[in-house]
Amino acid sequence: MIFYDCSTAPSPRRARMFIAEKGITPEVRQVDLGAGAHLSADFLAVNPGGTVPVLVTDSGSALVENIGIVTYLEAAFPEPPLMGRTPEEKGEVATWNAICEMQGGMAVAEALRNSSPRMKDRALPGPRNYAQIPELAERGKARVAGFFDLLEDRLTGRDYLACDHFTWADITGYVFVDFARVVRMTVPEDHTATHAWFDRIAARPSAQA
Amino acid sequence: MIFYDCSTAPSPRRARMFIAEKGITPEVRQVDLGAGAHLSADFLAVNPGGTVPVLVTDSGSALVENIGIVTYLEAAFPEPPLMGRTPEEKGEVATWNAICEMQGGMAVAEALRNSSPRMKDRALPGPRNYAQIPELAERGKARVAGFFDLLEDRLTGRDYLACDHFTWADITGYVFVDFARVVRMTVPEDHTATHAWFDRIAARPSAQA
Repeated sequence: MIFYDCSTAPSPRRARMFIAEKGITPEVRQVDLGAGAHLSADFLAVNPGGTVPVLVTDSGSALVENIGIVTYLEAAFPEPPLMGRTPEEKGEVATWNAICEMQGGMAVAEALRNSSPRMKDRALPGPRNYAQIPELAERGKARVAGFFDLLEDRLTGRDYLACDHFTWADITGYVFVDFARVVRMTVPEDHTATHAWFDRIAARPSAQA
Repeated sequence: MIFYDCSTAPSPRRARMFIAEKGITPEVRQVDLGAGAHLSADFLAVNPGGTVPVLVTDSGSALVENIGIVTYLEAAFPEPPLMGRTPEEKGEVATWNAICEMQGGMAVAEALRNSSPRMKDRALPGPRNYAQIPELAERGKARVAGFFDLLEDRLTGRDYLACDHFTWADITGYVFVDFARVVRMTVPEDHTATHAWFDRIAARPSAQA
């Protein structure tokens, strides 16, 4: 397997943490997003969408989305289970991963990509350019604040987002909460359940992967 | 099981088609989005996010995202398999479902919710209001056109989006292509592979569910 990564970017960090939790060791190739390597002809031949992460399986399938990569790995390497053990647990993990992507990851991306001078015309990832929309940056920040409240509601009285144990949903939530610092947003001090959960995930060796 | 549906909306149509393909018959409760029933106190007690579909399992879990619902159902009712049979197939289905959500569904929603007079201040689903951003409506339409091109590239020489057989990814792609008519966008005539695929899915009984 070949894992196309970028060690400084939040999106591939999700798959990277999952891989570390599974104890798998694919060949890793760094794609230098800062230098535009993701939009080079060589990389677009691997993923026409121009994004990382990508996992190329031993039989040559290129899985170009985080959810595709971890769904493949969970099926190919079932232990330890990170996407639920029962049908209901599987449903909850998929649900909370999606909530964290939509309410958290999309919100931070909206805020960052529509405001950073370094991302001029890069309001969306991929090979096509889109102009920044300043109102969307503001909306993104409002949504990040809403995401922090949603997490606190969910985590009050719970140790993990989806199940009674650590799962893929916690990886997604953790990576996006951590990434929110790029738009100068942090979890409010009185969100004590979220802080305890965040520290719990941060203490896992995979958080340093 | 209780399935909270809205027979006129695209989002629950995805889960509804999946349920029909599985031959499952949950109790169905209609939520009248046009009348604002999704933001009523009663429904917010079921899903604080204020969206349909929701599936409440027999043990009382409320799964509030399409992907959570179908992930649960695939595990609980494995036949016929709609999310891949092998690890690689599972990875491809998850990948292509995510691509259709991000490039297709999000694009149509962006175009519709930021332009329709009926959706004033409803630029995003959920209990909180967000103002429309006209530039985002334009961007959404440009992205829908890009989605149609992406589908044609993928489907040229293939019968189905993710695997050599019908899957959940085809449901997602089909529902969003069909929904694009609300922003007056249709697949270009010269996208013959996409038209053939669309007709193939439309001919399934589940498309009338």
